[in-house]
Amino acid sequence: MPELRKDPITGRWVIISTDRAKRPTDFAREQTKMKGGFCPFCYGNESKTPPEILAYRPRKEGEPEPQKDSPGWRVRVVPNKFPALGIEGSLNRQADGMFDKMNGIGAHEVIIETPEHNETLATLPQKRVEDVIWAYRDRVLDLKQDKRFRYILIFKNHGEPAGASLEHPHSQLIALPILPKSVVEELEGSKQYYTYKERCIYCDVIRQETEEGVRVVSENPDFITIAPYAPRFPFETWILPKRHESAFENSTTQTYENLAKAMKLLLMKADAVLDKPSYNFMLHTSPIQNADNDYYHWHIEFLPKLTKVAGFEWGTGFYINPTPPEEAARFLREASVETVSSDKLPAMA
Amino acid sequence: MPELRKDPITGRWVIISTDRAKRPTDFAREQTKMKGGFCPFCYGNESKTPPEILAYRPRKEGEPEPQKDSPGWRVRVVPNKFPALGIEGSLNRQADGMFDKMNGIGAHEVIIETPEHNETLATLPQKRVEDVIWAYRDRVLDLKQDKRFRYILIFKNHGEPAGASLEHPHSQLIALPILPKSVVEELEGSKQYYTYKERCIYCDVIRQETEEGVRVVSENPDFITIAPYAPRFPFETWILPKRHESAFENSTTQTYENLAKAMKLLLMKADAVLDKPSYNFMLHTSPIQNADNDYYHWHIEFLPKLTKVAGFEWGTGFYINPTPPEEAARFLREASVETVSSDKLPAMA
Repeated sequence: MPELRKDPITGRWVIISTDRAKRPTDFAREQTKMKGGFCPFCYGNESKTPPEILAYRPRKEGEPEPQKDSPGWRVRVVPNKFPALGIEGSLNRQADGMFDKMNGIGAHEVIIETPEHNETLATLPQKRVEDVIWAYRDRVLDLKQDKRFRYILIFKNHGEPAGASLEHPHSQLIALPILPKSVVEELEGSKQYYTYKERCIYCDVIRQETEEGVRVVSENPDFITIAPYAPRFPFETWILPKRHESAFENSTTQTYENLAKAMKLLLMKADAVLDKPSYNFMLHTSPIQNADNDYYHWHIEFLPKLTKVAGFEWGTGFYINPTPPEEAARFLREASVETVSSDKLPAMA
Repeated sequence: MPELRKDPITGRWVIISTDRAKRPTDFAREQTKMKGGFCPFCYGNESKTPPEILAYRPRKEGEPEPQKDSPGWRVRVVPNKFPALGIEGSLNRQADGMFDKMNGIGAHEVIIETPEHNETLATLPQKRVEDVIWAYRDRVLDLKQDKRFRYILIFKNHGEPAGASLEHPHSQLIALPILPKSVVEELEGSKQYYTYKERCIYCDVIRQETEEGVRVVSENPDFITIAPYAPRFPFETWILPKRHESAFENSTTQTYENLAKAMKLLLMKADAVLDKPSYNFMLHTSPIQNADNDYYHWHIEFLPKLTKVAGFEWGTGFYINPTPPEEAARFLREASVETVSSDKLPAMA
């Protein structure tokens, strides 16, 4: 008998097929490799992207200030060449008969995670994953100054089936003039719980998951990685800070170190268990104007792309998940992966 | 400058890229053809499906009653061999610590639309599309008697990229013991509008679309086919009854005739403009317990599968659509397709 489970935050129900649980090798593999050819994100091609917004370039003492848009960077942030939203102008809400529209103001940036075309966040040394996280944070802190924006989403599409259009490792950032619907749902859900219980719902989830253990993938001093109770997708996994923190950008240096550790470990485990899957991850955090609060808990949601969303899901907003999270967590928990020492950086191109 | 538009019913925002609008041929084609081999839905293989629930078999006067699970049918409805939900048992809601679960009770049926493996709803004669719609209705009326169910969704996945696992033309039906989230959203949205305006929001949409004309694809005496104002996907199209009707199953014979005409025409146009795309469609109707109401308006949503859903969409519930609905509607409206006479039925196998 399949089981219906309800996500405690959003109230979304999912169907968990408990009878014929799909194991990692049961999913049809889609090609993650993309066509080769010219890569605008590799060293030497800096002039092929819009001018950089931020870059981390290691520099020895006494050396001259490195030039912008030159090689030698570890992480580089540039505006998206084909942005979904435009950065110039002021917000203008309008009626269109009975409909509502607004001009598409926003920021759309690309975080190039490494100059190495063939590395991934799973294969990069942990220190380099930390650099990527610091770049996320620096961009969020800068964009928060812009009073037109209400929400900043950081996300990654890895592999063509997950929507990536370039192979070179990169994440994206979109700053939006509105609070998106699914963010509002999570905020409302956690606010309602807080009103009723006077506790953060995510903190309660962490408490129950820690006690039960069956859905825990890994833990470090600052983070817990779990398969959520009512996942939409097989092998959906969340990384949450163990202590209550409402906004990603207000964390401490040590927290970012341990976030890099947790992310790298999860991605390595997913590569091992699911044979280098395509995936999306999204950083869920509080809205800009309400970053410090007691009810929302920032976290990362990791969704490997193993199944297709079909008519049932589009018609109901309700998902059929063929792998119980207890199974998914066990596979990921038991996968032993070699963790590379964080000091051993690969040679730069 | 891209444009943000809000769906008036659900409040969902979408980003419409108005600058570099994607034309029908700009989308990467994914294979819709699937591997051949044994087909359980073809004539002669009736014993390979679970026993039929319903079948339409034309019969001449004086001939004996046709046998169940024998060939000779035009439309055949069978339980899904691998159901997402189980039909036996009574509902049982339970706590699981702080979480909530329920046993997975429901019906999951397959409507085999024709015995002809290589036909589609676009190529079948209109009368045969009508048969399919009558089968939908008959199943809904039967399942409505079951007091455990709260919602019945009819949907279709056509082509492997849209989640179909068998090529033979078929639709699906799922009866659910809960109201799914996106149904609740549409109901709540239209209720709110009704409270404020004392009019059905869909009726108002139809009025505005009819006046403006730019998003209209086609019309017949009972139905209007439009590209909605804030579509999630390129070439997303809705078919709505022109007069207020809250529940699909309570329509008249003439309405089903014209629905078959509107569906067939849209699918033919989509085949012509988008080169036989994969697609999903879903029948949105009122919940079982509240089928007759003044605020909700049943309709069909048609989503061709042309783009991939990626991290941004999963993180925000907000969609980036590269084709303005005015463009999509124009392409579909202007596509001239040969409409087959409804009397010319293909020879049965």
